[in-house]
Amino acid sequence: MAEPTTVHVPLGERAYDILIGNGLIDNAGALLKAKFPGRRFGIVTDTEVAIAQLPRLTASLDAAEVSYATGVLPNGESTKSFARLGEVVEAILAARLERGDLIIALGGGVIGDLAGFAAAIARRGMDFVQVPTSLLAQVDSSVGGKTGINSPHGKNLIGAFHQPKLVLADLDALHTLPPRQLAAGYAEVVKYGLIDDEPFYFWLEDNRREIFAGNAALRAEMVARCCAAKTRFVLADEKETGVRALLNLGHTFGHALESATGYSDRLLHGEGVAIGMVLAHGFSAKLGLAPSQDTGRIAQHLSAAGLPTHLNDIPGELPDTDYLMNAIAQDKKVVRGALTFILTRGIGQAFIEKNVDPAAVHAYLEEVRAIR
Amino acid sequence: MAEPTTVHVPLGERAYDILIGNGLIDNAGALLKAKFPGRRFGIVTDTEVAIAQLPRLTASLDAAEVSYATGVLPNGESTKSFARLGEVVEAILAARLERGDLIIALGGGVIGDLAGFAAAIARRGMDFVQVPTSLLAQVDSSVGGKTGINSPHGKNLIGAFHQPKLVLADLDALHTLPPRQLAAGYAEVVKYGLIDDEPFYFWLEDNRREIFAGNAALRAEMVARCCAAKTRFVLADEKETGVRALLNLGHTFGHALESATGYSDRLLHGEGVAIGMVLAHGFSAKLGLAPSQDTGRIAQHLSAAGLPTHLNDIPGELPDTDYLMNAIAQDKKVVRGALTFILTRGIGQAFIEKNVDPAAVHAYLEEVRAIR
Ligand SMILES: NC(=O)c1ccc[n+]([C@@H]2O[C@H](COP(=O)([O-])OP(=O)(O)OC[C@H]3O[C@@H](n4cnc5c(N)ncnc54)[C@H](O)[C@@H]3O)[C@@H](O)[C@H]2O)c1
Ligand SMILES: NC(=O)c1ccc[n+]([C@@H]2O[C@H](COP(=O)([O-])OP(=O)(O)OC[C@H]3O[C@@H](n4cnc5c(N)ncnc54)[C@H](O)[C@@H]3O)[C@@H](O)[C@H]2O)c1
Repeated sequence: MAEPTTVHVPLGERAYDILIGNGLIDNAGALLKAKFPGRRFGIVTDTEVAIAQLPRLTASLDAAEVSYATGVLPNGESTKSFARLGEVVEAILAARLERGDLIIALGGGVIGDLAGFAAAIARRGMDFVQVPTSLLAQVDSSVGGKTGINSPHGKNLIGAFHQPKLVLADLDALHTLPPRQLAAGYAEVVKYGLIDDEPFYFWLEDNRREIFAGNAALRAEMVARCCAAKTRFVLADEKETGVRALLNLGHTFGHALESATGYSDRLLHGEGVAIGMVLAHGFSAKLGLAPSQDTGRIAQHLSAAGLPTHLNDIPGELPDTDYLMNAIAQDKKVVRGALTFILTRGIGQAFIEKNVDPAAVHAYLEEVRAIR
Repeated sequence: MAEPTTVHVPLGERAYDILIGNGLIDNAGALLKAKFPGRRFGIVTDTEVAIAQLPRLTASLDAAEVSYATGVLPNGESTKSFARLGEVVEAILAARLERGDLIIALGGGVIGDLAGFAAAIARRGMDFVQVPTSLLAQVDSSVGGKTGINSPHGKNLIGAFHQPKLVLADLDALHTLPPRQLAAGYAEVVKYGLIDDEPFYFWLEDNRREIFAGNAALRAEMVARCCAAKTRFVLADEKETGVRALLNLGHTFGHALESATGYSDRLLHGEGVAIGMVLAHGFSAKLGLAPSQDTGRIAQHLSAAGLPTHLNDIPGELPDTDYLMNAIAQDKKVVRGALTFILTRGIGQAFIEKNVDPAAVHAYLEEVRAIR
């Protein structure tokens, strides 16, 4: 195994390391045994990852003679439910895992969010390790301690802040990730550039082709830069009461579109974010805040990565603009008639604007829908 | 309203006050409005307390023009379930309570544990206020931030550490508490004396009759001394990794008896603790650690308060000693053949003993069962 890159998350007594590299899953047994001697592990994963990556992990744990139990859940967003949470917690207790033992979340953001939350509440808090296997999970969801599930009232409305003890981001796991999922994760990568790192954005434009072709060194650098960026935001604002909201660039529009498509395969989360980021730039340009050429440039970049960038790229009919506005208002609650949005002054210059006029958003969406 | 007694819990950014006095519920509206201006409230309570105490609270909130929603659950231990937790969280979301709003737990330990846990996970953490209405909740469960529910695998196995923002212990609430519940709470009161406060134990012996007769000043002093004691343990060990375990005096035997009686009305939690404390003293005496006259003295005190003190005081048949030993082993996991128990060198001198021989416990229980 080549030496992995380490990003340290210095959260005091909740500090932990993110290791990024190749072969990490194959070495997980030795790594975990050295770091958590004498502990037992409970692996939580989904049906797809159980086929694609679990054998590597169990082989490694077996070789290191580490004791573990395994629970496999159906893949997909609907697994982030209250009922599945109960199943996971009961399975942890049934396996007689103790407060000193650890949960391993092996999978994408769905498994990371669910298993992390189960670890937060089983025995009033067990330690856990993130082994993110999707690009989205490696660059975003596995870092920062937000865990949780969905409610019929909305996404991620039930959960806990619970930091992992270790994150193992194995780039080899991406080899089995479906290409559409890889692209969706890439949207979140581009987001970090757009928020406050113009050089990283340009670096991505320059290296996108190589990255998608599988260049290991570039992928490692990309994931590490994203983890470092996410870490900065988490340190500044662990409980998301302020600046961490910048990470929602493109997400308000994106969530409305996810809601409009019923959180189905028609639009993956990262795909909604891709369209949302283009809309956020376009809307900022319309308000005279940002250069209008940025919008097209970003759309071209995302589109070349295989991502949708326009409402019309979503297959099937979309509900009308009133529906979208309603979904936006539910996502970000309306305070005295004004909406909060992440807007931008250009690439790498996003900011939080608490005073957005819903009528202006409505007009912009109508305009966008009329074009193309 | 006479000036309440205040016990401060100095937990840094999680610090809060416990107010103890008469008329606190009738003044809750004004108190909450002053402390949490502009916030909305979600009251969680049970069917019995909804009859006995809820009208006082809602009248007070109405008078202060504070906005609230109310959820009522069946009373009893079985309400501390995963399914009820889901109901409470969904009701909080349905009432559109936001992250800045507060949950009010109005009831005994069951409601405090359940509503506190729901507050911990709804929107990844909402603030909450404890309004304990049972003596047990006022002197024990409402203080210290342990929240949670039961699993088929055992009591309190799922939960979170989540400190309240305020505790209002209204002594007037005790007027409607069934006498048997009052006595059960008193067992936990006596516990604080037995652990490390001999003067308090003697004070209780001297004042028990007056306290049960309803003397307000003595009750206030009693509850305040218990809250101060609990606070000391919580400060020393917020997450219960060490000395806080002393609070489990009498609980290992007690839990085994609760399990043996199916967590039914045959034995309330506090009643199990009463028998358990007598057993802990008797067992310590048998090991030559504690003066043997203490055991009888404590039994007499508890018995005068209307509490059971001997296995034979439990109505109906008990399972055999092997069953009890099994329940004890499940409660406190057996480490290399040894059990952890809270033992004592006498009144006010409890200590944690990690090296108790299960065979000695078994022999002692057999002996006790043969007598009387
Ligand atoms: N906690 C946070 O901070 C945070 C941040 C962003 C997103 N999220 C959450 O993350 C979730 C989305 O994450 P996601 O995109 O990883 O979704 P996901 O977990 O559903 O994974 C996507 C799909 O890829 C499959 N998969 C994952 N890794 C694979 C691999 N190596 N090989 C083969 N198949 C693989 C999964 O089985 C799944 O079908 C959402 O629920 C979102 O709310 C959380
Ligand atoms: N979190 C902690 O630190 C902690 C500590 C000790 C116990 N507990 C938990 O507390 C629970 C036991 O608490 P409890 O003994 O208060 O039980 P409880 O909440 O079931 O209350 C006992 C009964 O009294 C009724 N009641 C309560 N207040 C009343 C009032 N003022 N008037 C009329 N009826 C009233 C309730 O409806 C219930 O039927 C257990 O679940 C235990 O695990 C938690």
